[in-house]
Amino acid sequence: MKLYGYWRSSAAYRVRIALNLKQLTAEHVSVHLVNNGGEQHTASFERLNPQNLVPALIDIGEHGDFCITQSMAIIEYLDESYPQSPLLPERHQERAIVRAMAQTLACEIHPLDNLRVLKYLVNDMNVTEENKMVWYHHWIHLGFKALEAQLDKHAGQFCFGDSVTMADLCLIPQVYNARRFNVDMAAYPNILRIDKACTDLAAFDAASPEKQHDAT
Amino acid sequence: MKLYGYWRSSAAYRVRIALNLKQLTAEHVSVHLVNNGGEQHTASFERLNPQNLVPALIDIGEHGDFCITQSMAIIEYLDESYPQSPLLPERHQERAIVRAMAQTLACEIHPLDNLRVLKYLVNDMNVTEENKMVWYHHWIHLGFKALEAQLDKHAGQFCFGDSVTMADLCLIPQVYNARRFNVDMAAYPNILRIDKACTDLAAFDAASPEKQHDAT
Repeated sequence: MKLYGYWRSSAAYRVRIALNLKQLTAEHVSVHLVNNGGEQHTASFERLNPQNLVPALIDIGEHGDFCITQSMAIIEYLDESYPQSPLLPERHQERAIVRAMAQTLACEIHPLDNLRVLKYLVNDMNVTEENKMVWYHHWIHLGFKALEAQLDKHAGQFCFGDSVTMADLCLIPQVYNARRFNVDMAAYPNILRIDKACTDLAAFDAASPEKQHDAT
Repeated sequence: MKLYGYWRSSAAYRVRIALNLKQLTAEHVSVHLVNNGGEQHTASFERLNPQNLVPALIDIGEHGDFCITQSMAIIEYLDESYPQSPLLPERHQERAIVRAMAQTLACEIHPLDNLRVLKYLVNDMNVTEENKMVWYHHWIHLGFKALEAQLDKHAGQFCFGDSVTMADLCLIPQVYNARRFNVDMAAYPNILRIDKACTDLAAFDAASPEKQHDAT
């Protein structure tokens, strides 16, 4: 397998954790999201992923190599294809709860607070640097507050009970990102506790941004 | 089943289509997203869904009623629990392609262009009404351009081959929304063709915003 990613991309970070938990090895190809106007915009990468986004995973299928995009689609694919260390519970109702927690992060926070959106706010919407930070904090607090309430009901050692799930894979990169932007985490005791439990695991640690070969 | 939704919510619209395709009946409870500061913020709704978002689906489980949130989690739940008219293909690789198309819409366009974000831009970021429209068009064109390239590879009569999938359920509400905001669709022949094929189906038609009991 080959994973096109970037050390600081939260979405690539999610997939790195999944690969590690399932003990799958992949060649990590760095797509630098900042240098040269962003390498995700090169013609060769665009052929691979017309969305100009990382991550993109190449796996080998019956009919040759194929490319999967979108981190949650990649994680579901890995979970279906490589069932060791499952990332979703078995019961439908429980799977839905885990997916909803993952989507609280991946659909309500991350799309609003990622690099390209923050840049667009400042460069094209004439939003001040100060207001850009207000924006960032607004959406992450709204999302974390909602997640914290979900965790009150469902968390054990991890987001859902005592096994690592897809929800944890989305949470830990978002917490990493929050810390970069100096988000006060005091109101989120569940999130802090789960972050500690996850980052203590080797699979999460090895996936962390600073441990990637393209980290600067 | 009971679906908490709103006639103009794209995410609720996705779930309405899923219910209709699977011929499942649900009581539709309207949560007015505009009146009274937004009924999604009432204490009673917040108890049901701390994310203050529609849709939320109530289904009856072994241990009583339970609530599922996040439209894509709801759709996956319905597909696992009520397998008639499947919304994902069988092969892992194909499921991943469909999920990635759905997420191109649900993670890259919708979170940026929905009502609460547009309101926040104007009310809190001092973005002008004119720039709000620039913002809306920027993200939808970026997403539709990426989706159109995916459709070049994978579409048949619908987004993925000749069966309706989860990708179509996300696409049609986004096209409806695009038309409300006068998006020029000329560059997206695949999307236009699929939109026509879907909206000709009774399950999509009955789910359309104007046909809902709370439409005004």
